[in-house]
Amino acid sequence: SSSGSRDARPAAVTPVAAVLPAGGSGERLGGATPKQFCALQGRPLVSYTVRAMERISWISNIIVVVSPENVDTMKSITEKYGHKRVTIVKGGITRHRSIFNGLKVFAENEFSNPLLQKPEVVIIHDAVRPFVEEDILSKVVMAAKEHGAAGAIRPLVSTVIASGADGCLDHSLERARYRASEMPQAFLFDIIYEAYQQCSDYDLDYGTECLHLALKYCRTNAKLVEGPADLWKVTYKRDLYAAESIIKDNLSQQVCVITDVKEAVAQVGFVLHESLKSRIEFEAISISLSRNDSHLQNIFSGQCYNFVCINDKKCAIQETQQIADMLEKSNIPLLYPIVLISVQLPISENTSFSIGMEELTRIKKFAREVKKKNILVYALLIQYKSKVPPRGLKSVNLRYPHGVTTMDGEQ
Amino acid sequence: SSSGSRDARPAAVTPVAAVLPAGGSGERLGGATPKQFCALQGRPLVSYTVRAMERISWISNIIVVVSPENVDTMKSITEKYGHKRVTIVKGGITRHRSIFNGLKVFAENEFSNPLLQKPEVVIIHDAVRPFVEEDILSKVVMAAKEHGAAGAIRPLVSTVIASGADGCLDHSLERARYRASEMPQAFLFDIIYEAYQQCSDYDLDYGTECLHLALKYCRTNAKLVEGPADLWKVTYKRDLYAAESIIKDNLSQQVCVITDVKEAVAQVGFVLHESLKSRIEFEAISISLSRNDSHLQNIFSGQCYNFVCINDKKCAIQETQQIADMLEKSNIPLLYPIVLISVQLPISENTSFSIGMEELTRIKKFAREVKKKNILVYALLIQYKSKVPPRGLKSVNLRYPHGVTTMDGEQ
Repeated sequence: SSSGSRDARPAAVTPVAAVLPAGGSGERLGGATPKQFCALQGRPLVSYTVRAMERISWISNIIVVVSPENVDTMKSITEKYGHKRVTIVKGGITRHRSIFNGLKVFAENEFSNPLLQKPEVVIIHDAVRPFVEEDILSKVVMAAKEHGAAGAIRPLVSTVIASGADGCLDHSLERARYRASEMPQAFLFDIIYEAYQQCSDYDLDYGTECLHLALKYCRTNAKLVEGPADLWKVTYKRDLYAAESIIKDNLSQQVCVITDVKEAVAQVGFVLHESLKSRIEFEAISISLSRNDSHLQNIFSGQCYNFVCINDKKCAIQETQQIADMLEKSNIPLLYPIVLISVQLPISENTSFSIGMEELTRIKKFAREVKKKNILVYALLIQYKSKVPPRGLKSVNLRYPHGVTTMDGEQ
Repeated sequence: SSSGSRDARPAAVTPVAAVLPAGGSGERLGGATPKQFCALQGRPLVSYTVRAMERISWISNIIVVVSPENVDTMKSITEKYGHKRVTIVKGGITRHRSIFNGLKVFAENEFSNPLLQKPEVVIIHDAVRPFVEEDILSKVVMAAKEHGAAGAIRPLVSTVIASGADGCLDHSLERARYRASEMPQAFLFDIIYEAYQQCSDYDLDYGTECLHLALKYCRTNAKLVEGPADLWKVTYKRDLYAAESIIKDNLSQQVCVITDVKEAVAQVGFVLHESLKSRIEFEAISISLSRNDSHLQNIFSGQCYNFVCINDKKCAIQETQQIADMLEKSNIPLLYPIVLISVQLPISENTSFSIGMEELTRIKKFAREVKKKNILVYALLIQYKSKVPPRGLKSVNLRYPHGVTTMDGEQ
């Protein structure tokens, strides 16, 4: 997760922008929809990639280059998913011409539009590689600052062979000596822009590799940086299947605990953390719902779709309703089921251990309503007989989609 | 589907065997289980690959080479999934040594075991490429007969680059001139066996490419055959996700229609075919359940898990029960839900249009019982008012998991 790599931020003063070529026709998928616009869990692939870049605070601008007929599609994606810092640019007839168009935005708007000022370093990344993380982006940017150009590489999976004119094997390459060139790549802006300006029509039409242009036209030998396996390019239909499975995995692997009750989160949060930490990513925050908390807003716009809301009030459903309201009002489209678990801790021994029929009816009604908006509400009453909250709570099985479960904590 | 490529069978007289190296440690998956033994939909990957080879009648023997510690695992897989024609062989410490061990079985048992006679052509295929079809196998076998060696190739997805000693780009290869060497490959047995016998220890330990050995030691330039995208090698966790999704897709895309009623299948089968052909693979057979039909047995052991059983008898459930019995008695483990739809056509106008309560109760009870064995039974009564069976039946929506639906055919 990118949250673990905050130290990977390149020297704060370097202005960095990104260009995402997204003009491919998707012919290898054998379908009508270009792969960058294929929906995974209801959301187009390109939107995942844009979000991956957006989450990195030190990337100032994201240029998405699409073929002219897809400008409107990309505009509506940008609006629908609330993308910021995105500029949509019309591509050319080849990949290189599209990237060149993307770079021109900075060179040509330098004086007219202060928001699109020329960056020192530009990242070039494919729209169809959605799982790019801050760590590798930071590495290629820093290497580009030093070497002028840098790119992610991976070991070859298959042996590479050259065929003769007769369609027979001529020779095979020694696999260990070669690497697959992947994305992201990064360049000093002046170097890659110079390379594209010098570039022959032949290279603009038939080449695909930016590192090659930097070498050929600017004599810049790119630094090669070993990247993670997740950088792979969504090329075939099977890659869409794989990407969708990875997205599903990620969605269910984060839990955010929300509470106003400092003491309660310290104790219940500890038990939850201990029992879940081996299986899922876990983020516990303690916030007041009375403020319009921007931290919560950031969590909503991140990859977290599971919330545990801990209360010690009698009418706890009010706070859960407040969170559901905030989720709806945030400009994040609720395309995935969001799980909202309301945990009620009757701290005082005087509090009744059971939920009244009226409260129960209200929770069920609320759960039914928000379910239409793809928010799944579960309510959990944890009762315990001493003043110490339950420490033996090992797992919470949620079997009732819109009901209430009561559970005795072990002493 | 392999059923569509019956003409692809190589000259009938050629004895062909296959060697499947399955000794990999799966380190690239980052998990403890080697990838060939990872379960997809409950079944190990290697079993899918073995089955893909088994379905091809002209492959006489399948040698699966596993590391010594996995011999028992592979034995139990072979038993559990009822694999035939499989010989398990202990592998060496590298891929080439494992393949060599597999080939030795034929060279060394030539006189002692008539079932393992030396083939004219041997196919070498990875255990982690489960979606191999008859068409490409036939092509490489025929090319190997002519050229001595042959292998499947694919276009490169990424640009291949060479790095210098400083970790910087030295040069990139022109993508169009190179190909990725994939599997299956095929060889005249004498050529590849000779190559392995001549092979240096260095090549046995550090090489991975069989085509290279045939070229280096036997001066045989392999014929390169463009293969389909599905030949890719399951290497990373995402590939397991992709493979599982493809398997799920395939499971639901075949329907086998079973009936004793020639006239009924001709008519109902036609309607089914017309309405479904654009969406699923469709195989309609007409068999008598009174014989122990080996064709039905073959269908059970294939990839078909959806059956439509058409009857014109009053007590149609008896034949459906018979099919469920045959499914249970076949040595195919029922790991996937098998869908069995009993369609009842009261042909005679004198037959009552409604199913009696007694019959209904019997069907429901039967459906509940076999559901425990992962067979899902649906019953459908199609009634029509003239002697002509319904032609307007466009789609059958199955909403009741264990119930009975009646449906009026349009005239």
